[in-house]
Amino acid sequence: MRHFLKIEDFSFIELEKLVNIANEFKKVRFSDTLKNKTLITMFFNPSTRTKISFDLAVTELGGHCVTIEPGKSSWGIEIEENTIMNGDAEEHLKDAIKVISRYADFVGIRCFPKFQNWEEERKDLILKNLAKWSEIPIVNMETISHPSQALAMMQTIKNHFDTYKKKKFVMSWAYHPKGLNTAVANSASVIASIFGMDVTIANPPDYDLDPYYINLVKENCLKNGADFKMTNNMEEAYEGADFIYIKSWGSLKQIGNFQPEIQNQYKNWKVDSELMKKTNNAFISHCLPLRRNMLVTDEVLDSSNSLIYEEAENRLHIQKAILCELNDEWYGGK
Amino acid sequence: MRHFLKIEDFSFIELEKLVNIANEFKKVRFSDTLKNKTLITMFFNPSTRTKISFDLAVTELGGHCVTIEPGKSSWGIEIEENTIMNGDAEEHLKDAIKVISRYADFVGIRCFPKFQNWEEERKDLILKNLAKWSEIPIVNMETISHPSQALAMMQTIKNHFDTYKKKKFVMSWAYHPKGLNTAVANSASVIASIFGMDVTIANPPDYDLDPYYINLVKENCLKNGADFKMTNNMEEAYEGADFIYIKSWGSLKQIGNFQPEIQNQYKNWKVDSELMKKTNNAFISHCLPLRRNMLVTDEVLDSSNSLIYEEAENRLHIQKAILCELNDEWYGGK
Amino acid sequence: MRHFLKIEDFSFIELEKLVNIANEFKKVRFSDTLKNKTLITMFFNPSTRTKISFDLAVTELGGHCVTIEPGKSSWGIEIEENTIMNGDAEEHLKDAIKVISRYADFVGIRCFPKFQNWEEERKDLILKNLAKWSEIPIVNMETISHPSQALAMMQTIKNHFDTYKKKKFVMSWAYHPKGLNTAVANSASVIASIFGMDVTIANPPDYDLDPYYINLVKENCLKNGADFKMTNNMEEAYEGADFIYIKSWGSLKQIGNFQPEIQNQYKNWKVDSELMKKTNNAFISHCLPLRRNMLVTDEVLDSSNSLIYEEAENRLHIQKAILCELNDEWYGGK
Repeated sequence: MRHFLKIEDFSFIELEKLVNIANEFKKVRFSDTLKNKTLITMFFNPSTRTKISFDLAVTELGGHCVTIEPGKSSWGIEIEENTIMNGDAEEHLKDAIKVISRYADFVGIRCFPKFQNWEEERKDLILKNLAKWSEIPIVNMETISHPSQALAMMQTIKNHFDTYKKKKFVMSWAYHPKGLNTAVANSASVIASIFGMDVTIANPPDYDLDPYYINLVKENCLKNGADFKMTNNMEEAYEGADFIYIKSWGSLKQIGNFQPEIQNQYKNWKVDSELMKKTNNAFISHCLPLRRNMLVTDEVLDSSNSLIYEEAENRLHIQKAILCELNDEWYGGK
Repeated sequence: MRHFLKIEDFSFIELEKLVNIANEFKKVRFSDTLKNKTLITMFFNPSTRTKISFDLAVTELGGHCVTIEPGKSSWGIEIEENTIMNGDAEEHLKDAIKVISRYADFVGIRCFPKFQNWEEERKDLILKNLAKWSEIPIVNMETISHPSQALAMMQTIKNHFDTYKKKKFVMSWAYHPKGLNTAVANSASVIASIFGMDVTIANPPDYDLDPYYINLVKENCLKNGADFKMTNNMEEAYEGADFIYIKSWGSLKQIGNFQPEIQNQYKNWKVDSELMKKTNNAFISHCLPLRRNMLVTDEVLDSSNSLIYEEAENRLHIQKAILCELNDEWYGGK
Repeated sequence: MRHFLKIEDFSFIELEKLVNIANEFKKVRFSDTLKNKTLITMFFNPSTRTKISFDLAVTELGGHCVTIEPGKSSWGIEIEENTIMNGDAEEHLKDAIKVISRYADFVGIRCFPKFQNWEEERKDLILKNLAKWSEIPIVNMETISHPSQALAMMQTIKNHFDTYKKKKFVMSWAYHPKGLNTAVANSASVIASIFGMDVTIANPPDYDLDPYYINLVKENCLKNGADFKMTNNMEEAYEGADFIYIKSWGSLKQIGNFQPEIQNQYKNWKVDSELMKKTNNAFISHCLPLRRNMLVTDEVLDSSNSLIYEEAENRLHIQKAILCELNDEWYGGK
């Protein structure tokens, strides 16, 4: 049995196959491939696209989705092993997943880090423990990484370039008033590097992604003979870019101690038409949700170079590809 | 493509057709008419009947419903155009609806006015903007009007009178401790006037509905040669009435400044058996939910003249009619 | 028409039939038995297993489930009859159930007692009133009793013993920091006694279950020639036991006045391997959710004698049996 936990668990061949399957689902939307299969989606955090697209992914293939929200409509959940449960949680993750394994065929999980203790949170314990205890495939719907989003982005890129190899991919930080999850940036950078793109990561000083991801991207670029660059200069990053992936994220230096006065220094990290002129007529995208005119201007978002809706749509197709692969090839059915 | 936004967007012929289709669905409940069609229902406010009946409407016709709750289980949503999103909302309505347009075939929306700034709220900006940006039909599930409820009421009336023309319809205010939405009263009065009923609107002084609706009702009555009356005298209103539609609503004079001491003066605006004796053995109904023995006594609600449950049931049938018409005639399929 | 309200409404024959049907569903999971049938589940309290298993029970048999949460995503609900609704509730239970009766085929309800006024709460008014007003079968998903859980436990017991008659069943209190619902303990004790097991109920002084249940269990044991015992001595209870059912519950002496300093005296009421050695190699189970290492050690829970996951799985099968029996035999279809 195999899980869908993070991009770097899969080879280029496997990831490309998922993108190709997703493109098939883009042509033929409905089938009975997942008849009598149940997906449980477990949300510790809000969701719009992920909730709808995972529900429809399994439903449109003949299966069924049930959504639970631990700590809200469902019981609070303890993640740590071998602990005396004297806190708020009434249920242990181990018991929840062992039970769900009896009811369902897949379980999706969304659980953002709280950005209080990165040394702990970067271990992604909830995913690791789910994978250890589950008897059915786990699908990461965003923890410290967001692999299904990265695949939807990659499908979008593939469908707009004859070849994506050596195209300049820019992972571009943008200003947002809060300290957001690094998950999307982590997974997007990794998948772009696996697909052989030149990768530039642009962010303000002290906003570097975790070294684990930086090193992964650097190694992949080296292996593929592609360029890798990190910069604190937004204009330099956009120079000659082919694809700009915009996202805000919190500084790992401010974990447990968010400092708006630092972040507010970077309000000028906003993408507008002037900046876009420096690129090679680049496409842009963002995972959504997005604060308009804060990270990106309406003009750029609503231009024909913006692929935000296409990427969002692709999540539906990618999710189907993931579930079908988990069901057939990697898992072999229940 | 056409949306289902408000009663007055439709002609008498179109509305009567919806009622007739709903009566067909009352006889044959299940079919595959909406196979592979998805309805997304978006609730900014609580719901029981609307949630269940829209879900079942699409499901019983072979389709599928996914419910999201912006600001709770889903991201908070910004409604205004061209705004810098520096408030609480993480997502723009434009982006949400553009993405949902890729996933689904219809989107239902419930978003009550906050009753803080009626000059703004009466524009029904969320509906207008959804209709502008959406690529799939929008269904109003209650904003400043509640057209599906009005149709369910009209279906109920049609099924209890050989002819409804010139029957006396009373839109009757009743006491409730809060300042509620005027939506149901707005749409009910309008549809009754379109169907050629004599319309009396009875409410305490300073509780008149918005002039837009009053004028609409007045004009329709004039056109149909029907009587139109407004009164602050409950007993006068009930005199000889054929159908009493009960609802509490807040005073537009108290927008942003609810004054319970004023509203509490009208605790005697309660419907009881004594009052009903003045009518022409009238049927009564209410949209539900309803505070029993506050607006109406148990005796009246549980009498054979009460059509509250029949109207509630009809919502299921009316919703099917709306979705099918949006799908077939007005929209032409996706 | 018949409801599924509490264990003692059913004979041994009827209960055993449900267990047997559930065992059939364990073999053949999918069918069209409940095609076009709708279950509405109404949760006043959180749920994981119950929500998922009831949803899947009806879905896997071809039907459909819609979940509402009164007071959260749906309107707050008034339970008392003949009351002036001047509190928080916007909707009366009578109206809610009368409407749902028009939409659906079954309604499940979860509504825990608030443990503020046991004299009132022990009447289980919400269930009684639902049964009075509903035109479709009501399914208790936990109020002051939890009959579907008790059946799932009994199915688990039946599948692990050649005969359960005269086996020693221990209803074993365990320490938890809060004063929890007695529902599971009530129903579990009653069903064990109906099935002819020897029943021992072990709890600290002043934690006795309500005399109604104690007397019911005592009478059933007497009728079946089985032993009945109550004890405040955990070790004595476990001596020679065949099946240990663990659960924490609040003291009825502390209703409306929870006293942690009293309950904390009983932290030693924890099940560990040492204690289990006193038993006749007993199986143990618990309804879940459960605070690990507070009520029971990991070692016991993860041992091969632990049937917690099997019981949880059986809820899916038992729920199907209940719905099908309500639909076919007891109810006769709609």
